[in-house]
Amino acid sequence: MIVLHTWTTPNGFKASIALEEMGLPYKVRPVNIGADEQFHPDFLKISPNNKIPAIVDEETGISVFETGAILVYLAEKTGKFLPASGEGRYKVLEWLNWQMGGLGPMFGQLGHFAVFAPEKVPYALNRYTNEAKRLLGVLETQLSKHAYVAGDDFTIADMAIYPWINTLRTFYQQEALLTDTPHIRAWFDKVGTRPAVQKGMTVGKTAT
Amino acid sequence: MIVLHTWTTPNGFKASIALEEMGLPYKVRPVNIGADEQFHPDFLKISPNNKIPAIVDEETGISVFETGAILVYLAEKTGKFLPASGEGRYKVLEWLNWQMGGLGPMFGQLGHFAVFAPEKVPYALNRYTNEAKRLLGVLETQLSKHAYVAGDDFTIADMAIYPWINTLRTFYQQEALLTDTPHIRAWFDKVGTRPAVQKGMTVGKTAT
Ligand SMILES: N[C@@H](CCC(=O)N[C@@H](CS)C(=O)NCC(=O)O)C(=O)O
Ligand SMILES: N[C@@H](CCC(=O)N[C@@H](CS)C(=O)NCC(=O)O)C(=O)O
Repeated sequence: MIVLHTWTTPNGFKASIALEEMGLPYKVRPVNIGADEQFHPDFLKISPNNKIPAIVDEETGISVFETGAILVYLAEKTGKFLPASGEGRYKVLEWLNWQMGGLGPMFGQLGHFAVFAPEKVPYALNRYTNEAKRLLGVLETQLSKHAYVAGDDFTIADMAIYPWINTLRTFYQQEALLTDTPHIRAWFDKVGTRPAVQKGMTVGKTAT
Repeated sequence: MIVLHTWTTPNGFKASIALEEMGLPYKVRPVNIGADEQFHPDFLKISPNNKIPAIVDEETGISVFETGAILVYLAEKTGKFLPASGEGRYKVLEWLNWQMGGLGPMFGQLGHFAVFAPEKVPYALNRYTNEAKRLLGVLETQLSKHAYVAGDDFTIADMAIYPWINTLRTFYQQEALLTDTPHIRAWFDKVGTRPAVQKGMTVGKTAT
């Protein structure tokens, strides 16, 4: 059994979507980051960067934090959604890392300055709005050429990006940024019809 | 032969350090990001996110962008600096992803507001200074328990973090943030004595 320590945020949903898609049995341990539970010493033992999600695989005893590592761990455990070798493997890792190093952190900064910051900071809001537009442009071009982010198949790269596009549109109130991205919108709708994705997007607040 | 498209920046140095450490033959193609060469159509074909570095492996025909993917590609090609399976593999991937998703982007934002931004933005400078301190605290704790970032051995996770600590101290003028991090300083000095690291840190501006 996999133990998933998570909360209802885009990074948390990446892991719950992957567990659902791979059909792995798992139990949920909510970590309420609004109540600072990510700083609990027991949680820091498996997630020293004080962030959700993290997993513990009771079968192997291995714990993993950072969603990029969690998705690769689960894909390598099951042999699903990440080719074991060849060009296809590295196309998935390219886009997974692009989400980890670019889209995730930069959307996160935009969300901070658009929604959370206690004061208006026009320079920063402008900077991260522009960077989000640039990143969406890169994704739009990629999805105009391929059915899924890393090519013909649905992979862990799609699982990493989907919940962040959702958060951008809803929580961060940036739907307008997607006006001219028809391929992203079509991909988002297509991925959103997957039952495992729908289920994964509900996980986080209730222990199971 | 590996073709390395790069420039003299922390992300570029990750790739050149890895190529040197692994003893792989490679040739350098400088991409002057100060002169917008990262937007050249030929470069965008292999690096659609318009960032250096990217590699092309002439042996396999595979091209890879995003340093997290490049480091894993080279490690899997050579069987070096990333265990093929087991707990050790995922400890390396955890810290590599922590660099990709946290330390790299957040140090980058600090550098922007400390050195590059055309106006002073106190809120943002304060935000990213605090986040850099938090990340350095996480790394300091990890290095107080282990000889290298992911455990007993020098791995691609160290290669990803080393050039960013260097840039923080020099280019970003944040040496003061390292005052109370003796374990990071000792690790930095130790990694800096490796001949392949020293060589890798000089690569970027000259075609070879
Ligand atoms: N790079 C990390 C980011 C994880 C992350 O940012 N988690 C957020 C929620 S989406 C969190 O736990 N925040 C709590 C905190 O920073 O204290 C990953 O991909 O796992
Ligand atoms: N997440 C990327 C970041 C690469 C990156 O930020 N490269 C910078 C230089 S350190 C760059 O090419 N900047 C040029 C630009 O953004 O136009 C990676 O790890 O490869």
